Amino acid sequence: MSEVRYWINGAPGDCLRPDERVVQYGDGLFETLQVSDGVADYLDFHLQRLQAGCRRLLLSFDDWQGLQAELQAHAHECGRGVIKLILGRAAGQRGYRFGSDQAATRIISTQALPELPPENGVQGVRVRLCGLRLAAQPALAGIKHLNRLEQVMARAEWHQGYEEGLMLDCDGRLIEGTMSNLFLVRDGTLFTPRLDTCGVAGVMRSVLIELAGARAIEVRRQSLRAADLASAQEVFVCNSLIGIWPVIAVDEQYGYSVGTVTRTLQQALSQDDRTRAGHWYND
Amino acid sequence: MSEVRYWINGAPGDCLRPDERVVQYGDGLFETLQVSDGVADYLDFHLQRLQAGCRRLLLSFDDWQGLQAELQAHAHECGRGVIKLILGRAAGQRGYRFGSDQAATRIISTQALPELPPENGVQGVRVRLCGLRLAAQPALAGIKHLNRLEQVMARAEWHQGYEEGLMLDCDGRLIEGTMSNLFLVRDGTLFTPRLDTCGVAGVMRSVLIELAGARAIEVRRQSLRAADLASAQEVFVCNSLIGIWPVIAVDEQYGYSVGTVTRTLQQALSQDDRTRAGHWYND
Repeated sequence: MSEVRYWINGAPGDCLRPDERVVQYGDGLFETLQVSDGVADYLDFHLQRLQAGCRRLLLSFDDWQGLQAELQAHAHECGRGVIKLILGRAAGQRGYRFGSDQAATRIISTQALPELPPENGVQGVRVRLCGLRLAAQPALAGIKHLNRLEQVMARAEWHQGYEEGLMLDCDGRLIEGTMSNLFLVRDGTLFTPRLDTCGVAGVMRSVLIELAGARAIEVRRQSLRAADLASAQEVFVCNSLIGIWPVIAVDEQYGYSVGTVTRTLQQALSQDDRTRAGHWYND
Repeated sequence: MSEVRYWINGAPGDCLRPDERVVQYGDGLFETLQVSDGVADYLDFHLQRLQAGCRRLLLSFDDWQGLQAELQAHAHECGRGVIKLILGRAAGQRGYRFGSDQAATRIISTQALPELPPENGVQGVRVRLCGLRLAAQPALAGIKHLNRLEQVMARAEWHQGYEEGLMLDCDGRLIEGTMSNLFLVRDGTLFTPRLDTCGVAGVMRSVLIELAGARAIEVRRQSLRAADLASAQEVFVCNSLIGIWPVIAVDEQYGYSVGTVTRTLQQALSQDDRTRAGHWYND
């Protein structure tokens, strides 16, 4: 599978009307699912987040069984790769206003897995602190909506030398990476930033919170600051495609070894049943 | 002209590829231009804002003369109506990262003028204060980018009874309307919120700042709070399509008459040369 294939509202094709509200306003949500062995990994978590996003955006969509079957069929056909789903509010009248019965548009694409350096998960990666600060918007925090200019502009801050950039909010709190969630380990306890004012609550973040809990590793979702990087013994970033990347350096300022909690979770993740149900944490 | 017509990168058609970054991330800008008598009103101001937006988003586009000619040709053909231009970052590699030479995609549509109640400009309108607060993001403030979920969600707060909703930021400062900019008049001086942390710096706002200045009406762009609505003698909202709508009530809390400064500016606007050059104020 070398190229990207598209389906719009179930029909194969790559022709989207410009009056769709995803084009006009970024009015919608997305999910990026890893497909392995013909199944969509952690589909239950992804659908939970999507449902939460629909409630938040007042997006009318209720055929969850149909969507689940559609994603499973694509995963089966794709075998191994990535499914990206965009669920947007369909075109309607002009302007920001939308109708309570306004339909949703489904855009599904399948493509090959990205070529990620396999050593990133083993040796770890260098990351940087981004200059761009995330704005605090509780109304949109946690969900994976399509207004992603902050991530785009943060990712434009560097070209090489770092595999990811960490982002602070406007109050100086640590929130996440541009494409990942962040965990710190201190004295055997796992910490991850609360995402109730900004950030995307990742599926892999929730999976790891559960895997840690099942291994009696205490997990705290709480407000963290850049200074907490100084007292951490282990740091890692995660998402659905990269899994867990240990962080070995933040800029030239902080350095870490790949520690036992990180390795324990990598091991747990590699052995996890990726078709299982679970709980998506929306802080 | 009853229907919407589209051109993508100069070619007639309404088929947009889903991998365009406007679809994926809202990675782009837009302008809504009124066309009257075959010309695009205040085109110079719109292009200034678009150029500022390109600089801010690091969007590679430099054929400004070509774009100006294209918009003028559409205005000529359209005669009377609305041109909407979306300038987005074209598709590229997967993920938030983009190349320094990544092209821009132009989506142009023309359609009829919206059917706005003509009495709104004469008798004035009732507006409300929205519950949703605008997040502070200086990196994106002022420009007209495509990440508009805040406006979408604010506009969803009411269905009837109000022609516009006013928005505060997270610190309680008055910023703008969901689709308009805001002006207050106190003791003959015109006040409009500074837009350096959030909000869209409207073309009509800049036009009115200039028209006021030319009539020796003092204009201050400054931080304003909801409480400033109590001491205002006149309030109005404006944009490129509605012109000036006097505000006669904010919720049940504040009431205003349509005053002389508002009428003076409406008169000045109706007599203004809409093909003139000017200065777009980016606070």
